[in-house]
Amino acid sequence: MKALGLSRRPKGKHADREAAEFSLEFKDIPTPEIPTGEALIRVRMAGICRTDQELVKGYMSFSGVPGHEFVGEVVEVDSAAGSQAKELIGKRVVGEINCGCGTCDYCHSGLERHCPQRTVLGIKGRDGAFAEYLTLPVNNLHVVPDAVDDQAAVFTEPLAAALEILEQVRVKLDDGVLVIGDGKLGLLIARILQLHGCRLLCLGSHPHKIELLKSWGIEAANYRDYQPVPCDLAVEASGSTQGFAIAVSALKARGTLIFKSTYAETLTLDVAPLVVNEITVIGSRCGPFAPALRLLGQNLIPTNQLISRIYPFDEAIAAFQYAAQADALKVLLQF
Amino acid sequence: MKALGLSRRPKGKHADREAAEFSLEFKDIPTPEIPTGEALIRVRMAGICRTDQELVKGYMSFSGVPGHEFVGEVVEVDSAAGSQAKELIGKRVVGEINCGCGTCDYCHSGLERHCPQRTVLGIKGRDGAFAEYLTLPVNNLHVVPDAVDDQAAVFTEPLAAALEILEQVRVKLDDGVLVIGDGKLGLLIARILQLHGCRLLCLGSHPHKIELLKSWGIEAANYRDYQPVPCDLAVEASGSTQGFAIAVSALKARGTLIFKSTYAETLTLDVAPLVVNEITVIGSRCGPFAPALRLLGQNLIPTNQLISRIYPFDEAIAAFQYAAQADALKVLLQF
Repeated sequence: MKALGLSRRPKGKHADREAAEFSLEFKDIPTPEIPTGEALIRVRMAGICRTDQELVKGYMSFSGVPGHEFVGEVVEVDSAAGSQAKELIGKRVVGEINCGCGTCDYCHSGLERHCPQRTVLGIKGRDGAFAEYLTLPVNNLHVVPDAVDDQAAVFTEPLAAALEILEQVRVKLDDGVLVIGDGKLGLLIARILQLHGCRLLCLGSHPHKIELLKSWGIEAANYRDYQPVPCDLAVEASGSTQGFAIAVSALKARGTLIFKSTYAETLTLDVAPLVVNEITVIGSRCGPFAPALRLLGQNLIPTNQLISRIYPFDEAIAAFQYAAQADALKVLLQF
Repeated sequence: MKALGLSRRPKGKHADREAAEFSLEFKDIPTPEIPTGEALIRVRMAGICRTDQELVKGYMSFSGVPGHEFVGEVVEVDSAAGSQAKELIGKRVVGEINCGCGTCDYCHSGLERHCPQRTVLGIKGRDGAFAEYLTLPVNNLHVVPDAVDDQAAVFTEPLAAALEILEQVRVKLDDGVLVIGDGKLGLLIARILQLHGCRLLCLGSHPHKIELLKSWGIEAANYRDYQPVPCDLAVEASGSTQGFAIAVSALKARGTLIFKSTYAETLTLDVAPLVVNEITVIGSRCGPFAPALRLLGQNLIPTNQLISRIYPFDEAIAAFQYAAQADALKVLLQF
């Protein structure tokens, strides 16, 4: 099958991240065997995420097939997965990306996504969605309702990541909330917080993204024009030291800062205000798929406005180049 | 009266922190007038804190009289403070260091220590305890029980800061807790967590402090000899980037990291693991005095083992120099 492969070539003697080069290119690799309890899925559509762009820079030292936002069709399931799993064949599905060992404390408490032995689709130890086929455990799959088309379903994973915020903290309806960053994830976060009902202000740097937020009825401004307003909750989704500094200076004492960006690099932070103001910082990653599909099925997430371009899979390299542009929104690959 | 003053001399044109020099020297200044609602206190004993050493390096750009750990005797109270306050005269007291405006939301909810308009004894906008006399609002004072002598009472403020951890998070008794840093505050934190009953490991770099922890029955090790053990709660009290990295690598997914150090400088941190493992980081500063005095009065804190040297106030400059040595514990000033 045709796949987009990320290769890692050690530079010099030391095979660590600093001394490796990563390159993305098309490869012809065997269609994957189906492991016990898993399903073979033909990818219909996949999304390029900021994390994929960070992987290409060396984040996680991943090599293999990247891609973790997808919608596909189940082609076959492992026979040991049981008769109920057979019913998935032919269905359109999305899939949770973390695959736990199934036996540790995390897995037993339903937190497979924190299993220390986990593989992660297209990120860690498991080939991902930038290929014609992928496999995932049957238990990771969610059937996509007919009301959700492919171009919406492919947003399930990032929307779930946005919803994780509401799993982690109780956002009071009178809370003042500041969302920093108008990237793809920032916009989804802004939308779910708007739906939640809290008082909301979003900061960004891209005029057309700020206009998009305003068109949804969300108060939004450029960092440049921002007049600091004390807030109870700040969400850092810009991935910048500046974003962190704005969040910390805006937060009331004992406020909460959600860290929603993954970075390939270290950040230099002034942590004294965290201590003095007793700020709580919460790292936040993957989230629940079921409510994400619910919101998508109810047409509450304007995903069509979040798509910049759709490329045929054959043009994935060009798609990656386009996605790297500062003002691009979601770039999709059509199989 | 005699006071130890921290002076701030601008270097060059720009009067910001980078371009200022701070110097500590004895001064003769007027005994303070007593503001409305406050008491005049003759200082009996004061402690030098790491924060004082940071102030001398420019933290908070403070100038004036530093010092916020003290025990003293009330000499006079403002007549407007009421007849009950008069009963404080002649009493031995310790004092909470944050003085709120009394009218904002924080002050109304009992969180004067987070009032944005607050002054802080010897740290921000208010002369402190390295002087023969100081003033504080009557409401900030706590009478010291006879069972607590001066050398123990002077630990009330840092002990309260350690206890703040138990105000902020629920530490389960089966939790594995890692305390990083064997400085003065680290040792107090270790002690209160030991008394709380959780499973505890402390890491430090000073052999005699590690031995002290062990003599209390606390498991302690040098960073060098540390074999990572997953923990539920980590307390960073070392003030180092290395301490942060150890904490993050030891924490289980969804674990909690308490930030207990104030730094004059920024830290360069790898924040990706915070996001991936959904770690909660909580800044922690000043804490409750009443339980601190209770523990001291019950002889549960071996404060006498935490004192390195006691200097007469006249020799405070030498005391500061000695306190800067890596293996010094608490250095006290006797008035």
